[in-house]
Amino acid sequence: MHREEGLVADLMRSLQYLPGVGAKSAQRMAFYLLQQDRQIAKKLAQSIRDAADQIGFCEQCRTLSEHAICLLCSNPARDSSQLCIVESPADVYIIDQATGFKGLYFVLHGQLSPLDGIGPEELKLDLLDQRLQTGEVKEMILATNTTVEGEATAYYIREMANERSVRVTRIAHGVPLGGELDYVDSSTLNHAFSGRQKM
Amino acid sequence: MHREEGLVADLMRSLQYLPGVGAKSAQRMAFYLLQQDRQIAKKLAQSIRDAADQIGFCEQCRTLSEHAICLLCSNPARDSSQLCIVESPADVYIIDQATGFKGLYFVLHGQLSPLDGIGPEELKLDLLDQRLQTGEVKEMILATNTTVEGEATAYYIREMANERSVRVTRIAHGVPLGGELDYVDSSTLNHAFSGRQKM
Repeated sequence: MHREEGLVADLMRSLQYLPGVGAKSAQRMAFYLLQQDRQIAKKLAQSIRDAADQIGFCEQCRTLSEHAICLLCSNPARDSSQLCIVESPADVYIIDQATGFKGLYFVLHGQLSPLDGIGPEELKLDLLDQRLQTGEVKEMILATNTTVEGEATAYYIREMANERSVRVTRIAHGVPLGGELDYVDSSTLNHAFSGRQKM
Repeated sequence: MHREEGLVADLMRSLQYLPGVGAKSAQRMAFYLLQQDRQIAKKLAQSIRDAADQIGFCEQCRTLSEHAICLLCSNPARDSSQLCIVESPADVYIIDQATGFKGLYFVLHGQLSPLDGIGPEELKLDLLDQRLQTGEVKEMILATNTTVEGEATAYYIREMANERSVRVTRIAHGVPLGGELDYVDSSTLNHAFSGRQKM
């Protein structure tokens, strides 16, 4: 296809970097940004630029933050005896929004995957282990994904925690609330069935 | 709702300026931009910034362009005897992509709407009239929207063109291609029926 020239075309191409944005949405977004007060576009550009320049990883939990210690870790109201292990900074955000969890997090930035060269060092599990050694963490909640690698990662971390005598829990897996059995895949249903609880 | 602090939260809020982007999409976009190579985020910020700073209106057709005369108007391969009148710069883009039209455009940036204080001056119809006076334009194609104001605008411009003896056409309105009659609204169907053509 003919590569179009000009800043409008360039803007449309750049907007397509965003996930879920195709040619049509990028086009609508570009014209929207240019038709509105330009301050909106400038503010958006500045927010992206600031975030890209200044956001790094929290030294304690490794989530995304512009501070050396993120706002969650430095919040004295959070309960440091509970530590939730997640795969990505997005998971921290999602769990914090959806649940009443008031503990702290540790972000792995991936899953153990020896074939891809991702071992305990890549996930900074030594940093996690140091934290467990302080004795402050009483419960570790594993919220890694239910993929094969996610489960393997959960098992590996459970062994680590057992050595430090920290209680380990795993978030429940089963049929989603409001979900109809018809629409649930068979492995989830199987898991839900074998994990049935007394009511 | 609790207003969150920090550059990640700020980025999510700013991304919601984009049309069709809600809290959930903004969240996914923000984490995506920060998880990838940061050069992508920086390039996006730069494209938005450049566009907001440098794009103005073409002096001839009033579409969005960073040049005094846009790339369409300054392209000698375009046929200056055909002039398509549209309401917005997005319409120029859409028509140019979808059709084989090789003429030029004139962007109104709105519709005649006396109640909102939008008259011929606001749409720069004097600029359009000057262009008609040169005698270069042989056919004017009206592609304003089919709203009441869009139709009124089309009629007004037709009168202008008639005074300058320029041939005026209107894009066809009717049942969309691939559309089933079941799903077409009654006024479109009525219009399509009364505008039936010999085949």
